[in-house]
Amino acid sequence: MKIYLAGPDVFLPDAIEIGRRKVDICARHGLTGLYPLDNAVDLSAGDASLTIFKGNEAMMDAADAIIANLTPFRGPGADAGTVYELGYMAGRRKFLLAYSNDPATYADRVARFDKVTQSASGLTDSDGLAVEDFGWPDNLMMIHALDLHGCPLVTPKQALSDIWHDLAAFEACVGLAADRAKGKSS
Amino acid sequence: MKIYLAGPDVFLPDAIEIGRRKVDICARHGLTGLYPLDNAVDLSAGDASLTIFKGNEAMMDAADAIIANLTPFRGPGADAGTVYELGYMAGRRKFLLAYSNDPATYADRVARFDKVTQSASGLTDSDGLAVEDFGWPDNLMMIHALDLHGCPLVTPKQALSDIWHDLAAFEACVGLAADRAKGKSS
Repeated sequence: MKIYLAGPDVFLPDAIEIGRRKVDICARHGLTGLYPLDNAVDLSAGDASLTIFKGNEAMMDAADAIIANLTPFRGPGADAGTVYELGYMAGRRKFLLAYSNDPATYADRVARFDKVTQSASGLTDSDGLAVEDFGWPDNLMMIHALDLHGCPLVTPKQALSDIWHDLAAFEACVGLAADRAKGKSS
Repeated sequence: MKIYLAGPDVFLPDAIEIGRRKVDICARHGLTGLYPLDNAVDLSAGDASLTIFKGNEAMMDAADAIIANLTPFRGPGADAGTVYELGYMAGRRKFLLAYSNDPATYADRVARFDKVTQSASGLTDSDGLAVEDFGWPDNLMMIHALDLHGCPLVTPKQALSDIWHDLAAFEACVGLAADRAKGKSS
């Protein structure tokens, strides 16, 4: 089974090393991890971003599954590029897996950045926009896509000290993918 | 042509009215707008979020195209639920359209929320994570998906006073969809 390894990990200073660790974990479970190309492209080239896009899309098309890192990124929710890729793989009818290294609910995450108000009509932010308050860690579209088209979002039982380098929840996803691969081949 | 109308508009206090305005604009161009169900569901029901998901997914499957509102939402980038839907529609090989009512580049948007630093290795945020700096308004995966699988992101020429109620960029997308629909039928 080939698994596309989506996440804002590509923006870390040690992005290439994290990618190697993730691919190694996949290999230990008998799976092939495909890590996005963002760091394998000459960023000074005029068409660098298009080259990254085309490479990542081809990698997703070649993969059987995705493991998306939905750890909150620059705000209360997941990285947009990663969420796009999760949606793309859902549309391609691939097997969906994801983790978030932040176990908090979305409402609690919004409250870290903004003043939220509870009223009879529900929870709102300081701009008066509704805050999803279903008790899920992120937007319902991702949460239920995982429930229905893969495995439920994996989160740690408690907050982690290093949300960008702890790969326990990632490895739990790899284990679920390996179970799925065995089920398919048996 | 049926168009799924994705966006954080569903979180506005006047979400239903905005939906009506968008559907009316589509109708004036001879198109059918499908507005997400978030506000047509009893939120007190135990399975409300799953009902919303299934309804929205069925609506996307029935649509020929998407117009996604990628205006920044609770941070420098687009709403996660909307981005998921744009990815899903790309995966389903539907026609992709989107607008953002904020014409700023992603790097400038990040600088509104965080201290960014330019060094020889590129632009980084205060956590040391790389900031995409290609001059696009949001993550490259969405920008190039639109370029290659629909029409380039539509943005206003200058900042708007009411980013949540100005529908000029939305109507420009509807016009592009109408052109596409005519092209297909001729």
